[in-house]
Amino acid sequence: MNFPKSVHISEEGPREGFQIEKAVISTERKVELIDALSETGLKQIQIAAFVNPKQVPGMADSDEVVRQINVKPGVSYGGIWFNQRGLERARSTNRLTLLGKIRMFPSDAFLKANLKRTAQEHLKTVHEEMDQFKKQMIPVDRISITSAFGCNFQGDIPQERVMSDIAQAVEIAQEHNIKPTIISLADTMAWANPLSVKQLVGKIQDQYPQYKISLHLHDTRGMAVANAYAGLEMGVDMFDASVAGLGGCPFASHAGAAGNLCTEDFVFLCDELGIETGVDLEKLIEVAILAEEIVGHPLPGSVMRGGSLKKLRERA
Amino acid sequence: MNFPKSVHISEEGPREGFQIEKAVISTERKVELIDALSETGLKQIQIAAFVNPKQVPGMADSDEVVRQINVKPGVSYGGIWFNQRGLERARSTNRLTLLGKIRMFPSDAFLKANLKRTAQEHLKTVHEEMDQFKKQMIPVDRISITSAFGCNFQGDIPQERVMSDIAQAVEIAQEHNIKPTIISLADTMAWANPLSVKQLVGKIQDQYPQYKISLHLHDTRGMAVANAYAGLEMGVDMFDASVAGLGGCPFASHAGAAGNLCTEDFVFLCDELGIETGVDLEKLIEVAILAEEIVGHPLPGSVMRGGSLKKLRERA
Repeated sequence: MNFPKSVHISEEGPREGFQIEKAVISTERKVELIDALSETGLKQIQIAAFVNPKQVPGMADSDEVVRQINVKPGVSYGGIWFNQRGLERARSTNRLTLLGKIRMFPSDAFLKANLKRTAQEHLKTVHEEMDQFKKQMIPVDRISITSAFGCNFQGDIPQERVMSDIAQAVEIAQEHNIKPTIISLADTMAWANPLSVKQLVGKIQDQYPQYKISLHLHDTRGMAVANAYAGLEMGVDMFDASVAGLGGCPFASHAGAAGNLCTEDFVFLCDELGIETGVDLEKLIEVAILAEEIVGHPLPGSVMRGGSLKKLRERA
Repeated sequence: MNFPKSVHISEEGPREGFQIEKAVISTERKVELIDALSETGLKQIQIAAFVNPKQVPGMADSDEVVRQINVKPGVSYGGIWFNQRGLERARSTNRLTLLGKIRMFPSDAFLKANLKRTAQEHLKTVHEEMDQFKKQMIPVDRISITSAFGCNFQGDIPQERVMSDIAQAVEIAQEHNIKPTIISLADTMAWANPLSVKQLVGKIQDQYPQYKISLHLHDTRGMAVANAYAGLEMGVDMFDASVAGLGGCPFASHAGAAGNLCTEDFVFLCDELGIETGVDLEKLIEVAILAEEIVGHPLPGSVMRGGSLKKLRERA
């Protein structure tokens, strides 16, 4: 085992969750959830998506949500956007840490179906985005690989293709004189298993030891905790996770698209392994229960129901 | 990785599930579920518990269930019992594979709370049980360790205690001239994590290489798949699992006691790793959906909702 001493968790629950929930959640309750998350020890929370409100009505109030939260010192709040208009909305809040990515899509079929681009056309777009980031003085912290393990449109993604996409991204970074420090692997449609996680992470560590690796794991097939554990054994120390397992990918083309790795289940795992998260698990469990109350239906988290072992250990 | 080529799965869903469900499930529907499981390729199914019907009313019709199933050639059907009367009921069905266990409880607090015995008194009971098994000509195939990782009453269970319980059981087997071939570790109350699984399994493999190891993993804290994967990496090739995640332990003293490792999620994992299960995953998913319909509420399985990757691969 090559466990890290500590892990950094990016909480994705608000962004992943609010975009997919069918019932209208009031701005007030969104703010309540984010403020509660800010008190758990989480250091990074994704809270907004500046996208077309007609396409993603659950995020239409993102600007207002960002304005109303209690910004907790030491917590970085983030959001996503996909075009100039979205970026301007994000920037105008003045409260978000804006970060750019070199976004790579090793699934040609996904590129075609969702972004209407060939891989070649996409590269051109990435170059334009880098120019924009520079102009807007937005730091680019990561190379981000969507559907790094498999894709419902394309099937299995060969690891060689991911490696060549990373190589292209590294080249793009050099050309634009930017220095991302993270390679982020997203299992967007839940095709990964612990072995494929270990293999891909190992290849990247061998070839790009100067980069940190971050994992974004969906739980559609119940593998997220096992996949995260595989990452921990490889020394991965950056994870996206979603409180109570909120969320899911609305573009995954099937109904079962479950949320991300559940944050409190992952924190429980880290606690048991002696890996620091900086998060107070008991507080986080309370927030998970709050999240379930806010969305009004059961969420997939386990530890929020089963409880941590802390009280049981104290009682025994 | 020291993956096994194939794994043996003991399906625990009917036994684990029917005992804990609050709504009455008709004998007919129990039989329907068991018969459907028999058609998936599973080779061992636990279908009955011959226990006090007043204490576990969901199992009161066990005798009738066993009589009504379609016995599929090649499938072994099992049940549990805790006393002479239960054993007689089990035997009188003439359709079950009756197997004895050397049952060890490394949690003194659990022994005291549930069985009203000290460890010393328990050893005496085990000797008596071995005498009974011999008299009744019931083969004893395993040493079974309950709460092998931790216990809500006792707290963490030191691995040294588990090892000394195994040593005692091995001694008992020798004294009675019986030859169990399996050491079964039950994470009855979901205290295990993948690291503790690897450590305990490793110790047992080192000291008792002639025994096969079997894992019985509860999913109360969302760790079951990760724990099972840890077992696979150690070469463990016998697992208990529960279709759709049916069930839970009624004696676990907390409401969150979730079911076992979900069978179809585990079969999915094995399929992805190239480990033979003998089970048709698509058929098993249909049975999981049937199980959910029969109990009348959502069950915790993931792949039954997210789907396997087979059709997506074919379509891509």
